[in-house]
Amino acid sequence: MAKILVLHGPNLNLLGQREPEIYGNVSLDDVNQNLTRLAKEHNIEIVCFQSNSEGEIIDFLHKEGIEADCVILNPAAYTHYSIAIRDAVKGIKTPVIEVHLSNIYAREEFRRHSVIAPVVWGQISGFGHYGYEMAFWAALQLIKNINR
Amino acid sequence: MAKILVLHGPNLNLLGQREPEIYGNVSLDDVNQNLTRLAKEHNIEIVCFQSNSEGEIIDFLHKEGIEADCVILNPAAYTHYSIAIRDAVKGIKTPVIEVHLSNIYAREEFRRHSVIAPVVWGQISGFGHYGYEMAFWAALQLIKNINR
Amino acid sequence: MAKILVLHGPNLNLLGQREPEIYGNVSLDDVNQNLTRLAKEHNIEIVCFQSNSEGEIIDFLHKEGIEADCVILNPAAYTHYSIAIRDAVKGIKTPVIEVHLSNIYAREEFRRHSVIAPVVWGQISGFGHYGYEMAFWAALQLIKNINR
Amino acid sequence: MAKILVLHGPNLNLLGQREPEIYGNVSLDDVNQNLTRLAKEHNIEIVCFQSNSEGEIIDFLHKEGIEADCVILNPAAYTHYSIAIRDAVKGIKTPVIEVHLSNIYAREEFRRHSVIAPVVWGQISGFGHYGYEMAFWAALQLIKNINR
Amino acid sequence: MAKILVLHGPNLNLLGQREPEIYGNVSLDDVNQNLTRLAKEHNIEIVCFQSNSEGEIIDFLHKEGIEADCVILNPAAYTHYSIAIRDAVKGIKTPVIEVHLSNIYAREEFRRHSVIAPVVWGQISGFGHYGYEMAFWAALQLIKNINR
Amino acid sequence: MAKILVLHGPNLNLLGQREPEIYGNVSLDDVNQNLTRLAKEHNIEIVCFQSNSEGEIIDFLHKEGIEADCVILNPAAYTHYSIAIRDAVKGIKTPVIEVHLSNIYAREEFRRHSVIAPVVWGQISGFGHYGYEMAFWAALQLIKNINR
Amino acid sequence: MAKILVLHGPNLNLLGQREPEIYGNVSLDDVNQNLTRLAKEHNIEIVCFQSNSEGEIIDFLHKEGIEADCVILNPAAYTHYSIAIRDAVKGIKTPVIEVHLSNIYAREEFRRHSVIAPVVWGQISGFGHYGYEMAFWAALQLIKNINR
Amino acid sequence: MAKILVLHGPNLNLLGQREPEIYGNVSLDDVNQNLTRLAKEHNIEIVCFQSNSEGEIIDFLHKEGIEADCVILNPAAYTHYSIAIRDAVKGIKTPVIEVHLSNIYAREEFRRHSVIAPVVWGQISGFGHYGYEMAFWAALQLIKNINR
Amino acid sequence: MAKILVLHGPNLNLLGQREPEIYGNVSLDDVNQNLTRLAKEHNIEIVCFQSNSEGEIIDFLHKEGIEADCVILNPAAYTHYSIAIRDAVKGIKTPVIEVHLSNIYAREEFRRHSVIAPVVWGQISGFGHYGYEMAFWAALQLIKNINR
Amino acid sequence: MAKILVLHGPNLNLLGQREPEIYGNVSLDDVNQNLTRLAKEHNIEIVCFQSNSEGEIIDFLHKEGIEADCVILNPAAYTHYSIAIRDAVKGIKTPVIEVHLSNIYAREEFRRHSVIAPVVWGQISGFGHYGYEMAFWAALQLIKNINR
Amino acid sequence: MAKILVLHGPNLNLLGQREPEIYGNVSLDDVNQNLTRLAKEHNIEIVCFQSNSEGEIIDFLHKEGIEADCVILNPAAYTHYSIAIRDAVKGIKTPVIEVHLSNIYAREEFRRHSVIAPVVWGQISGFGHYGYEMAFWAALQLIKNINR
Amino acid sequence: MAKILVLHGPNLNLLGQREPEIYGNVSLDDVNQNLTRLAKEHNIEIVCFQSNSEGEIIDFLHKEGIEADCVILNPAAYTHYSIAIRDAVKGIKTPVIEVHLSNIYAREEFRRHSVIAPVVWGQISGFGHYGYEMAFWAALQLIKNINR
Repeated sequence: MAKILVLHGPNLNLLGQREPEIYGNVSLDDVNQNLTRLAKEHNIEIVCFQSNSEGEIIDFLHKEGIEADCVILNPAAYTHYSIAIRDAVKGIKTPVIEVHLSNIYAREEFRRHSVIAPVVWGQISGFGHYGYEMAFWAALQLIKNINR
Repeated sequence: MAKILVLHGPNLNLLGQREPEIYGNVSLDDVNQNLTRLAKEHNIEIVCFQSNSEGEIIDFLHKEGIEADCVILNPAAYTHYSIAIRDAVKGIKTPVIEVHLSNIYAREEFRRHSVIAPVVWGQISGFGHYGYEMAFWAALQLIKNINR
Repeated sequence: MAKILVLHGPNLNLLGQREPEIYGNVSLDDVNQNLTRLAKEHNIEIVCFQSNSEGEIIDFLHKEGIEADCVILNPAAYTHYSIAIRDAVKGIKTPVIEVHLSNIYAREEFRRHSVIAPVVWGQISGFGHYGYEMAFWAALQLIKNINR
Repeated sequence: MAKILVLHGPNLNLLGQREPEIYGNVSLDDVNQNLTRLAKEHNIEIVCFQSNSEGEIIDFLHKEGIEADCVILNPAAYTHYSIAIRDAVKGIKTPVIEVHLSNIYAREEFRRHSVIAPVVWGQISGFGHYGYEMAFWAALQLIKNINR
Repeated sequence: MAKILVLHGPNLNLLGQREPEIYGNVSLDDVNQNLTRLAKEHNIEIVCFQSNSEGEIIDFLHKEGIEADCVILNPAAYTHYSIAIRDAVKGIKTPVIEVHLSNIYAREEFRRHSVIAPVVWGQISGFGHYGYEMAFWAALQLIKNINR
Repeated sequence: MAKILVLHGPNLNLLGQREPEIYGNVSLDDVNQNLTRLAKEHNIEIVCFQSNSEGEIIDFLHKEGIEADCVILNPAAYTHYSIAIRDAVKGIKTPVIEVHLSNIYAREEFRRHSVIAPVVWGQISGFGHYGYEMAFWAALQLIKNINR
Repeated sequence: MAKILVLHGPNLNLLGQREPEIYGNVSLDDVNQNLTRLAKEHNIEIVCFQSNSEGEIIDFLHKEGIEADCVILNPAAYTHYSIAIRDAVKGIKTPVIEVHLSNIYAREEFRRHSVIAPVVWGQISGFGHYGYEMAFWAALQLIKNINR
Repeated sequence: MAKILVLHGPNLNLLGQREPEIYGNVSLDDVNQNLTRLAKEHNIEIVCFQSNSEGEIIDFLHKEGIEADCVILNPAAYTHYSIAIRDAVKGIKTPVIEVHLSNIYAREEFRRHSVIAPVVWGQISGFGHYGYEMAFWAALQLIKNINR
Repeated sequence: MAKILVLHGPNLNLLGQREPEIYGNVSLDDVNQNLTRLAKEHNIEIVCFQSNSEGEIIDFLHKEGIEADCVILNPAAYTHYSIAIRDAVKGIKTPVIEVHLSNIYAREEFRRHSVIAPVVWGQISGFGHYGYEMAFWAALQLIKNINR
Repeated sequence: MAKILVLHGPNLNLLGQREPEIYGNVSLDDVNQNLTRLAKEHNIEIVCFQSNSEGEIIDFLHKEGIEADCVILNPAAYTHYSIAIRDAVKGIKTPVIEVHLSNIYAREEFRRHSVIAPVVWGQISGFGHYGYEMAFWAALQLIKNINR
Repeated sequence: MAKILVLHGPNLNLLGQREPEIYGNVSLDDVNQNLTRLAKEHNIEIVCFQSNSEGEIIDFLHKEGIEADCVILNPAAYTHYSIAIRDAVKGIKTPVIEVHLSNIYAREEFRRHSVIAPVVWGQISGFGHYGYEMAFWAALQLIKNINR
Repeated sequence: MAKILVLHGPNLNLLGQREPEIYGNVSLDDVNQNLTRLAKEHNIEIVCFQSNSEGEIIDFLHKEGIEADCVILNPAAYTHYSIAIRDAVKGIKTPVIEVHLSNIYAREEFRRHSVIAPVVWGQISGFGHYGYEMAFWAALQLIKNINR
């Protein structure tokens, strides 16, 4: 049975409360429940996790990421400077899909650069919480190709 | 009946022949036929167009883009410098989804910056020809929300 | 009989529709008709042209620009990167007046640099459609000086 | 009765003597007399002032600029670094037209940037002393619109 | 009863021992006791916290910061790169006062830029441990204004 | 009897009129009267001065600053480029407190750098007119320490 | 029979007329006739083409370039920004020789960088119209080596 | 009895598995055992520690580092941005030796800059796991000098 | 009778008092008296002037500088940003010798660039007050050559 | 009898041994013998020289270069920083042809800039050892034109 | 019998005399004698050489370096700009160990970048003359591995 | 008897021949003879030396410079990149006067920066060959002060 990890970075626990004009009104629980439902429908195991700590995200990638088939990762603010998370992504060989709720390229200058993007499989940016679902379809596609 | 445009930029007519280690073996015709099939299934009108000329791309956006519900645009090399296409995207108010076959953030320095990204709805990068399909699902989601 | 060219760059065909909070409600036709009326009053031949294509703008400058007495040019988005148009402006020796509807120095960083400005006679920026009329007065002044 | 201020920055008192190959042979008195004559013809009050001192230019903008209908300002060398004049221009709310005798974009690198341009109504650059007259026409246009 | 949080970033537990020529001889306990005494005098609840971990600081801001009336934050080294703390500061809406013991603008180049400053209410830099007391006065002022 | 100077830079005479959404509605007179009242209460001599001229500010620092116990300086626009004021601050040895009404680090890029900050005792930024009062408390603290 | 393409970029149709102090007095026809004569002598098929349009240059490279043995390309102004032509050069696998009439490294700063150079076989710069002949000899050498 | 700390930064727990073409096949346990054996031979107490968390590394430096005679530190990805670790290194006064497995100067641009190097005693880069042994010899040398 | 001007910029009135470890103990009066004595010996008229105001320095250059045979100018802090003084130096055609007491190239980064240097005859930097005497010898040499 | 110099810079004595995947298998002797043969056929005197020393290359340019008709120069690594060789090239007035074996624009960033290119007649880059022969033909062309 | 070269760059002949606060009191002879003694103990041939000339260093690397088993190189000032030495290091295939007496990363900005580091085996920086001994141990390790 | 060295860098042997519009018509022999005559008059020993080689200049500074009382150095092109000469200047402790014939600050961008200036006593730039004489007077002044 294939396995997908969903990993949310710092401040995403505030989703739905923090700056709703940018990030929308949907909460992190809503996002996770929607993905869990989809996973169940397609017979995929799914694990969702959120942390504000760079070290915990790396620990999680090491412990859970190596055996997973695909990781859906929203690194939030760490996107822009965490070379440590980048190295963790590269170190585990599992394909990673980077997701951003907002279109990071339409925001402040310092948010337009991702240090993690060069080591992921692909990136989805700007589609709000629907971006997680798109990442799920891509992960599914990947898993199907592997199993073929 | 909702309408989606698919617009391919310069050199994409060579898809499947040019640098297959980066862009894959699927041809542009394959991409267009897959999208057309999906559109038919969901009762969406679809128009596909490719041009190597910046001016023609802008003309097309003006003529066809204003009445469409969503534009799926792969600006290829023009991604990195065509402020004229950016202005056209912003000028028509139709939401635009930017698609890149390869993960542009894992390539040469000059390919890591998109002048068009700040004015699109969202961006999908790195999922090969499946990225077009993901863009289709996002466009569909958008159309559903509008019709609701 | 003296001759003035008026050359409008990409997306200016949308004038009056596109981003009216920046570019105003006057259409390109209105601008051209106003200039044509002024030209008639001063017994000047005038030709107005718009294109979204860099190549066509250069072709036009070569074919029509060499024999004209003055060119009024709004290069729009090409202002910021078209060294090819710059070379065409320098190659024909006719004096060129660069016009911008908006104050380009009060906008996004990338719009504050003109690669064409160093080879024109003068630049007018920020007076909306009235800037074309100001350019006409300057061209007239130039023609008078030549004929003296 | 409408009122226009004309404000000349540092070294412009040398106009006609200093670097005539760049700035021409017309003196500052000639410029002022021409503008005064035009103002009289259109029933406009006009005040002309020159100073080499940044502080005096700001004082003048505060004292005379607030009640004027339009300010024609050639900040000369202060164009490139006087954030204090920029703040004064922004602080009084009177519309300001920035004028440069030479095409500053065709000169040394450090003259191609204006810290004042982002807060003015419009900019005219490169038409020699005729640029002041063009600024007068624009100011007139503005006053007419207000009075309508 | 109003509530103020005092949040000390990495290495501040060494205060009084580490580089006393820059940071002085007063210990973190001294700072906290002084603030606690002041708070008691003005009938304010106060909570002091120190952590070397970026994640813990964010957790604390989320848990305690939202209900507080004001946060006094010395982000120490995280000042210069923690976009995650910046997002946390912006996400909770409580006003934050940024405090630095040393004058960060008189130190190494990389310490002269704060990624957090753009989202705080105000910044105090260079007054040694007295800066915390100044922040307390400002917080008090704020609380008074709210209660008026 | 201890003595404090309060020195306001260019355009601050417009305080309360100019851009009130950034600088507030309190006038410079209000600020000065508040500080004078505080000084009287603490038996401190105080001198307040405003000038738009860089040279006059330097003259004042030389003439009055050397004998004062502390200078409260808001250099306004000169903050960002006046190396001459910086040298004057460093030349007199009196401690100087730099005050800014707005949070300069949350504004335009060019306002985020102070050439004067590296030579002052401390900096207060973003607390509106209350920042002057905070500077007064810091100055008082300094004077007490000296007299001890 | 081997085949060489000769492709001239924007404004080269003005050769001999435009800025002769930089580009010389020889016309584009002269250049093409000389190359045609040389090709005939060495039994090589040759096709010469000029366009001011980026899109047409790419179309030509796709249609004619793939079957040719070597392309001699003077991208003119497009040298400095056309990533689209760069991609076309890389997409067709035919070896390309980049030719510049003037020594681009002795000219304005922005002309000293070629975005196309990294994907060509070699570059010849500064030898005027004789540079085309040198490119011909290099192409001939290449064809000989292949046929050996 | 002298004491040496060995501190391994993020992702080094994957040593021997992650990117072996860069970091080699030796595991972190092997490294630690070799150093422990050497320490025993020279009658030195040694403590080895690995963490993915910036905060834990700082905590460890504070708790264990101050009493140690020398710290051997491989900050891994934190090398490039952790000013907090830099401050911890500077805050404890124990001499620190920075070790990198790979030659960081022969890798990606962003890995060629160490924010920690300016505050360490010395740096060793590029000798693979043998670099730790070299650091041990240097530490030994230091301890001998102190004891002399 | 030949005439030399000596012009001292901001803060030089403090010479001998301000930062003597950089600028020495000699006062501005001493410098001026020494130059006056030398001038008398060589039958040269000399005028010495100091101002803290950019505008006054320009006024002085205009009024006195045009008729002088040589100007010895120490622009002090204005060296680094006063394009207005630069323009004044270029506008009067009298040769100007730039003098700096300290070796500006051995000081802070921002003091290593002179905007005035490109328009002076020559520059002398680092010889303390003796640099003024060296400038006098150079001026004398110049006057002799002219009179020959 | 006309004379051509061929001057090879540092490390070119290793040609054929050093990094053959970049520089090919032909030795420097092979290159020199081929050029000597060509020179003999066209009745040209030729001198070939290699040195690893910047000073010797300059000495050689001074001693032999002034009387030669043309210099073929491969400055190798000195291309990128030797302003001294640049000055020597400019000082002797003999036309110089710069040759590079590899396409320097397709290599590391620091190899893409030549400080010598702005003062040479033309540059040939990327054609391997055949580039020397192309330089010979250009030199011959030059000599013919002079003798005509 | 294995062979190690020790190569000292410019100004190292002054070691022990020049700036002892940075480079220590040990002379170059002391360093060489220590290494020679160590080499004898381990039955290694060793050659030590110092030169102030870039060309001589390259000549030496070519002549002696190719046959050696390892080169210990302190390029001194050439570290920061000699691409020619870099090419020599890369051209000979012998592994090279780069040694710096001082911690170059704790010094002036321009000393923090090594153009040679990307092509060496490893780098040792900051351990004073003991760094040469550390390099010796690394070289020994390398030779042992080869002989195994 | 005091001793002065005069040291001329690369290409200065061509003085009087090379680019006379910049460097004048006086030869290096003329310069040296003039200085020798002056030295004799003031009873100073003088040694003049020219070399095109960086290494020889450093050798000369080491051998002759340490015992001299003052060095007059024109580093010519090495001014802009020779950190090795900079280190030699700093290593010998003799005061060095840097001389440039032309005003280097009025020339190409890359000539406006001297890596040597931060370690010399003073710099003289732009007075042609008379600059050497000025350096002589400064050296004389220095020697007098020492002997006093």
